[in-house]
Amino acid sequence: MKGYVQVYTGNGKGKTTASLGLAIRAAGAGFGVFIIQFMKQGMYSEIKALKKFENIVVEQYGAGKFVKGTPSDAERAGCRQGYERLCSIIESGKYDLVIAEEANVACSYGLFSEKDLLHLIDIKPDHVELVITGRGAPASVIEKADLVTEMTEIKHYYKQGVVARVGIEK
Amino acid sequence: MKGYVQVYTGNGKGKTTASLGLAIRAAGAGFGVFIIQFMKQGMYSEIKALKKFENIVVEQYGAGKFVKGTPSDAERAGCRQGYERLCSIIESGKYDLVIAEEANVACSYGLFSEKDLLHLIDIKPDHVELVITGRGAPASVIEKADLVTEMTEIKHYYKQGVVARVGIEK
Repeated sequence: MKGYVQVYTGNGKGKTTASLGLAIRAAGAGFGVFIIQFMKQGMYSEIKALKKFENIVVEQYGAGKFVKGTPSDAERAGCRQGYERLCSIIESGKYDLVIAEEANVACSYGLFSEKDLLHLIDIKPDHVELVITGRGAPASVIEKADLVTEMTEIKHYYKQGVVARVGIEK
Repeated sequence: MKGYVQVYTGNGKGKTTASLGLAIRAAGAGFGVFIIQFMKQGMYSEIKALKKFENIVVEQYGAGKFVKGTPSDAERAGCRQGYERLCSIIESGKYDLVIAEEANVACSYGLFSEKDLLHLIDIKPDHVELVITGRGAPASVIEKADLVTEMTEIKHYYKQGVVARVGIEK
């Protein structure tokens, strides 16, 4: 089956959850799934849930949390290590679905370059479906992708003072 | 924990997958999840995957497929039965997260009314998180919801002639 490049971007809720949904749908069909999380570290509820699937692999690299201010050298090194791992995973063709979570955000923080992001698309074997998420997708990535959805925030309850809840946001 | 009302609407890809992602995140946190699918029938890949979670229940009602043209009496009856089941599930407070998939679409096909949709929000116990998906959410539902994301199609590969693929779209 031919694989495509999907991008989920925009400022609304639902980018990471949509990629999680794709992961379990693919796993349900017997596909191998590799998820790399940039900018997150730790045992989120979704990671606990994904452990049930032997054909879904999740790895976390980078900042350990959403970067505030200027990334440290350690954060940069972690992200670079993750990027190299991601390249080798994509090139191997071993996984049918590869999800690069928050890769757009890592890019906008300068943790890797726009050229690095485009390179992921260039090296993709034909059968691999590549999903790139995160707000602020570069125009060049949108141009090169096959499917792009922008999650637009119409209304958000953080304006009511709701903070991230275990099991719903994390 | 207080529950809110989330709406995923718009013409872009990612509404159903975002609700699936929410379902597994909630399940990972030990919450009970009830998913009702209007307008779908059959063993999609996501249903196979969700069977791994004993705290996620999925039920399908209605048309058996996306309705084309005018719904038949049997389709109307199926949808009505699903709606009544959904009301009783929400009111029971037994599930922390209730997802009404394609409820906006069922509404726009006249399978149930806008008033019916708003009623779901009215009867929600305080702790229940209610998620309503589907393109064409009525303005009154958006008004009453706490979080609304519009999935906007920027680019879609169906324009390249790509049809729904098992493990990716279904």
